[in-house]
Amino acid sequence: MDFSLTPKTEQLRKRVSDFMDQYVFPIEKEVQREIGESGHTEPQCLKDVRKKAKAEGLWNLFLPGKDGAGLNNHEYAPLCELMGRSPIGARAFNCMAPDTGNMEILSEFGTPEQKKKWLQPCLDGEMRTCFSMTEPDTAGSDPTQLKTRAVRDGDYYVINGHKWFTSNAIGSSFAIAMVVTDPDAEPHRRASQIIVPTDTPGFNLVRPVPVMGHTGGGGHCEIIYKDCRVPLTNILGEEGGGFAISQARLGPGRIHHCMRIIGVAERGLELMCKRANTRFTHGSFLADKANIQEWIANSRIEIDSCRLMVMHAAWKMDTAGKREARNEISMIKVMCANMVMIVLDRAIQVFGAAGVSDDIPIARMWRDSRSLRIADGPDEVHRMTIARRELRKYK
Amino acid sequence: MDFSLTPKTEQLRKRVSDFMDQYVFPIEKEVQREIGESGHTEPQCLKDVRKKAKAEGLWNLFLPGKDGAGLNNHEYAPLCELMGRSPIGARAFNCMAPDTGNMEILSEFGTPEQKKKWLQPCLDGEMRTCFSMTEPDTAGSDPTQLKTRAVRDGDYYVINGHKWFTSNAIGSSFAIAMVVTDPDAEPHRRASQIIVPTDTPGFNLVRPVPVMGHTGGGGHCEIIYKDCRVPLTNILGEEGGGFAISQARLGPGRIHHCMRIIGVAERGLELMCKRANTRFTHGSFLADKANIQEWIANSRIEIDSCRLMVMHAAWKMDTAGKREARNEISMIKVMCANMVMIVLDRAIQVFGAAGVSDDIPIARMWRDSRSLRIADGPDEVHRMTIARRELRKYK
Amino acid sequence: MDFSLTPKTEQLRKRVSDFMDQYVFPIEKEVQREIGESGHTEPQCLKDVRKKAKAEGLWNLFLPGKDGAGLNNHEYAPLCELMGRSPIGARAFNCMAPDTGNMEILSEFGTPEQKKKWLQPCLDGEMRTCFSMTEPDTAGSDPTQLKTRAVRDGDYYVINGHKWFTSNAIGSSFAIAMVVTDPDAEPHRRASQIIVPTDTPGFNLVRPVPVMGHTGGGGHCEIIYKDCRVPLTNILGEEGGGFAISQARLGPGRIHHCMRIIGVAERGLELMCKRANTRFTHGSFLADKANIQEWIANSRIEIDSCRLMVMHAAWKMDTAGKREARNEISMIKVMCANMVMIVLDRAIQVFGAAGVSDDIPIARMWRDSRSLRIADGPDEVHRMTIARRELRKYK
Amino acid sequence: MDFSLTPKTEQLRKRVSDFMDQYVFPIEKEVQREIGESGHTEPQCLKDVRKKAKAEGLWNLFLPGKDGAGLNNHEYAPLCELMGRSPIGARAFNCMAPDTGNMEILSEFGTPEQKKKWLQPCLDGEMRTCFSMTEPDTAGSDPTQLKTRAVRDGDYYVINGHKWFTSNAIGSSFAIAMVVTDPDAEPHRRASQIIVPTDTPGFNLVRPVPVMGHTGGGGHCEIIYKDCRVPLTNILGEEGGGFAISQARLGPGRIHHCMRIIGVAERGLELMCKRANTRFTHGSFLADKANIQEWIANSRIEIDSCRLMVMHAAWKMDTAGKREARNEISMIKVMCANMVMIVLDRAIQVFGAAGVSDDIPIARMWRDSRSLRIADGPDEVHRMTIARRELRKYK
Repeated sequence: MDFSLTPKTEQLRKRVSDFMDQYVFPIEKEVQREIGESGHTEPQCLKDVRKKAKAEGLWNLFLPGKDGAGLNNHEYAPLCELMGRSPIGARAFNCMAPDTGNMEILSEFGTPEQKKKWLQPCLDGEMRTCFSMTEPDTAGSDPTQLKTRAVRDGDYYVINGHKWFTSNAIGSSFAIAMVVTDPDAEPHRRASQIIVPTDTPGFNLVRPVPVMGHTGGGGHCEIIYKDCRVPLTNILGEEGGGFAISQARLGPGRIHHCMRIIGVAERGLELMCKRANTRFTHGSFLADKANIQEWIANSRIEIDSCRLMVMHAAWKMDTAGKREARNEISMIKVMCANMVMIVLDRAIQVFGAAGVSDDIPIARMWRDSRSLRIADGPDEVHRMTIARRELRKYK
Repeated sequence: MDFSLTPKTEQLRKRVSDFMDQYVFPIEKEVQREIGESGHTEPQCLKDVRKKAKAEGLWNLFLPGKDGAGLNNHEYAPLCELMGRSPIGARAFNCMAPDTGNMEILSEFGTPEQKKKWLQPCLDGEMRTCFSMTEPDTAGSDPTQLKTRAVRDGDYYVINGHKWFTSNAIGSSFAIAMVVTDPDAEPHRRASQIIVPTDTPGFNLVRPVPVMGHTGGGGHCEIIYKDCRVPLTNILGEEGGGFAISQARLGPGRIHHCMRIIGVAERGLELMCKRANTRFTHGSFLADKANIQEWIANSRIEIDSCRLMVMHAAWKMDTAGKREARNEISMIKVMCANMVMIVLDRAIQVFGAAGVSDDIPIARMWRDSRSLRIADGPDEVHRMTIARRELRKYK
Repeated sequence: MDFSLTPKTEQLRKRVSDFMDQYVFPIEKEVQREIGESGHTEPQCLKDVRKKAKAEGLWNLFLPGKDGAGLNNHEYAPLCELMGRSPIGARAFNCMAPDTGNMEILSEFGTPEQKKKWLQPCLDGEMRTCFSMTEPDTAGSDPTQLKTRAVRDGDYYVINGHKWFTSNAIGSSFAIAMVVTDPDAEPHRRASQIIVPTDTPGFNLVRPVPVMGHTGGGGHCEIIYKDCRVPLTNILGEEGGGFAISQARLGPGRIHHCMRIIGVAERGLELMCKRANTRFTHGSFLADKANIQEWIANSRIEIDSCRLMVMHAAWKMDTAGKREARNEISMIKVMCANMVMIVLDRAIQVFGAAGVSDDIPIARMWRDSRSLRIADGPDEVHRMTIARRELRKYK
Repeated sequence: MDFSLTPKTEQLRKRVSDFMDQYVFPIEKEVQREIGESGHTEPQCLKDVRKKAKAEGLWNLFLPGKDGAGLNNHEYAPLCELMGRSPIGARAFNCMAPDTGNMEILSEFGTPEQKKKWLQPCLDGEMRTCFSMTEPDTAGSDPTQLKTRAVRDGDYYVINGHKWFTSNAIGSSFAIAMVVTDPDAEPHRRASQIIVPTDTPGFNLVRPVPVMGHTGGGGHCEIIYKDCRVPLTNILGEEGGGFAISQARLGPGRIHHCMRIIGVAERGLELMCKRANTRFTHGSFLADKANIQEWIANSRIEIDSCRLMVMHAAWKMDTAGKREARNEISMIKVMCANMVMIVLDRAIQVFGAAGVSDDIPIARMWRDSRSLRIADGPDEVHRMTIARRELRKYK
């Protein structure tokens, strides 16, 4: 048993951290303002920072194989945490969801042609993408309910259906859409993943769904697929392989999410401590009051627990395989998404009125993080599967 | 002991409830959209509804004496709950904060001239107002720290200082400002409340502070008072009486806040139940799953507990006086503000992705309600005073 | 709406409270020690106090009709709270479960002969009783599973079955047993309640089940009914009426339980405050530390909420009937049983090592109270029924 | 980073686990009954099992150096968890507190004579010991308040003072007593640790303090030191070194405690799952109800988090030193002691009435575990120190 990070990771941590301090945090507010006001564009200052990160080789660090930086999950995880400290951190290093997941599955399942046409521009930071799975009328956590259909018609799939929370669709070059290709197959062989260029006729971007008051950036978009035709060659992997690919995608994706969340929580804790050290009320600094101390201590405990659990899940995924690490991944999914809300809630309270304002980043982090208990499977579904595995041991 | 409502209240409940169904809920979305997009105006559709409410005599129900509808606090409270079910409910009936508090203290402490000039137009729904107390640099819950100064200069007070969270300042005709008139007096005699017309030179509205992503409507405004001169006759009550007036204002204000919160929570619970009854996933309706049932049961318990506690506090305030009911009011302040966050959080989770979207009103209610644990004294300060009173019994 | 107590209640509160101070608290430790060491006897000092209470007319206060003191539920509830402050309080006033419930149903459903033979001696404090319903092999909260059978044989019922948690069986003159008389009837007409003298052959008291380390007093007894014959005239009410009688019994019983719990919690809070006022550590009294203050404030809030909810349920039961108050009774059952554990847990923590010792009464109250979340229906079943009623509103 | 256990640990885990199954669990009930009924003796069946464990070399595994089995903390920790699954597990392998801590400090600080006279018999399992620090009148978590005095008188220390929670004093050969040798020294140089044979005149064992209803076994004893004379050579380490020795003792001791707690929680979870799999109520098995599943899933998450945190703390202590690992040790202390109460509370609830009975071991584990949030420093003091370290980063 050895809890130390590899020298490679330690050294990259230093570089990513310095880069964050020097380039990312300084433009954070400006980026959020520009995205909020002028919509979906990638502000120029962020473009510049991305160029710099690419030049320094701090790029595609999330991608394990030779298409990427070659780090495995538990090597990348600590870097991902650092990026998570800023809402624009991941994007600065081309490590932002959902592009990361799309790149991963293109790298793992894509044909050479698909890689050339769709993966390479993403790796180069020239193309953005979205993932189109969630449907308004079906429970996303229960994939057997999926309704959107792709029907073969000669050399084409014709797609019809209704999606939403296709995040980042605005500005994306293509979506990877999860669609039913064989409704009569057994449940987990019904769906396939198909690349759909966003300029395909019948890919109708209805609107970015307003989420917690925001519609900016790439949006969490509602899409109506209406006789949307894409070549058969746009299928990813084999027909009916949609769920298998999803599984492959979800493991690393959840590790990333969780480590970013930990970064968010660490930022919240740091701000909370700084405030507590300087805010004086009712006879003492907040830092000297036992209830505030309790929040800080509990936050430290909860964050550190989450980090160890995520590192362990990443290590298990790296050493025993994604399938073997499913339970660990479900556990961190639930744990981290809940933890961050509690830590940020405390931070808001420590800041008082300033805490609910957008003068400091906590309120934004708080409302943005709320979706994490729902996305990629709500708490309740993960807890159900964890419990079932536990109960099975004694049957 | 008798928990039944008076016939007067029962009958008004019916009328308010019907009015909400017929006029208020239907324009809710439109009003929020217009305020969000076009800023601070009162949309025409809301103006129309207000006119109708006034015509029907459902107007100024919050105000106890002959200036208002003559209901006491525990008679008004159940109506206030109904209004709270919609974010625009209170305004429809001219019962919205902070105008209610300002009208109350004008009614109680105003001179005949002040009443004529400032109170009557408010009662008529023709003037809107704000209350200017919180300062960015001092802890609002510790009033001895207040910094903004009013210095006599001939027939005038000259005000200098920095305020924020002067809610609703945009569109207001006047602010009631809490300012230090005698820094050398004993702590609770230092401040006074002064009427400051918002068009007075030196009343500089810097910006609406963005709160949880929003700057719309009247705003939570930052104000810089810079040599702002108002006549000595604009003082409310006597010099040094600022805290006493605040106390008088806070009691009923907190009852209103709490009952509105209960209305918010009831709306959340209703929506949650409707969703649970119709959403099918993993083999059954959400309504049939034991964890969702637990959320619903706990929500019902928590809401009903809060309502009884608020009604009791209102009754005690009405029968024993505001001062005697201080502890009860602190208790409901903490209790309701925490309860609503938990109930709404559950509602979000029951709705899944839709829950974080603004297609349904819950996410908005959730982020707007977060400030309630801070405004009017954070949880922590109320708990401290409640504890001290409890501990004192045994000293 | 009127939250004041009636003069009758106020006056009885004073008398009960004085009696507790003068006679009950002083013998508390002695009684517990004697019961713990010498088993099931009623210690002489307790017998004396009971005699005194009876002489003063502070006797059978729980019983509403002419058989008892004539108080209705919301009049008795505040007295019950006072008795709850000591584990021997209810017994001092002949208001202890399960005798109270047995007396109630005998009073309501008993024949004149049954009343004379079984009720009167209980009212006189000369007979003790038990209630025999829970079975080890079936879920007590799901009465359709009940297995113990009573079969008619001439003028007798012959009872066979296995019960446990027949509390107080040691020293009891009779049990009221819930048994299946018609297994083929619709679920809620299957069972009947039958009076079984404990000296009947075939009423085999196996052992007092050790509960939280204790077997003293009347015990939570395991009973094996083996061809146990009782006359047909021992049936309470009609055959098949067992559930209906149970319902009649449960309402007031739960009110009593809840009010006693509130008494327990008040005692815990009082002790916690006294300790906090006098224990000095790390530079200040515990009473001055913000986390301890938070526990005290929250305890006050939670206790007061519970009390209002119980009083409201009692009032509703008194004015609208037991059936109408079912939901309210389920709510207080869940709420109070959880509240008391939290309050006592805090009290233990404030006392440190002394808190887990039996030198002070808190640890005992804490472990004894744990069963309240299970007895009379576990939290989970009550929450399920509350939720179903709520959900039904929107179907 | 490597989360795998060493082959040595893996192999010992197998052996300890098999030994527990074969010899320890089968006598668990008998041992507890005998201790409960006949007081302080070590029942013969336990003596036999201890002999067997010693013969198999599963003995003194806790002790790192050449005096013991030579395992470091993170190698021993997983074994300690296994032992923790039974309340008699640690004792079976001679790894029970407080003897472990006493042996550790004797091994580290004892003179050759002390080791021969006091350590060796403990290692051989022939002598039992206690640790005498906590005082009823001073807050144990604030060592500067310590009052018990040792005054030099010729070749002797004369000890006077009042201790309690000197656990295991009944049947012990000696106590290690924490006493003030120089009240005028700076706070952390005031106390010393002195070996006091329990047959020394003036070592007055007043009583075992009843804790959660129990006084059996070695007891949590109250001791009055009255002119108790021990030779100067009985001091452990140097005069004034008491706190330093305590620190040395606490690190490993807390690791042991925490891992044992995890064992307790695992046992609770196992029993809970088995019950849920077999108990049928209201139409389904408990295992199929979403709220029970939630308890199980959360228990799994919380236990696994605690285990990783403890393993990390142990590893840090082994690699960076006890002092460096202080914060980690405080964190696991708080975390594990709270976790176990929650897990066991859920287990009780799943068992219903049986859960509060002593027919199954959960209720006992629950009430015994409550002291863990107080012993070795209450939660509140650990949280305070954790928070202060966190806050210091930003000062």
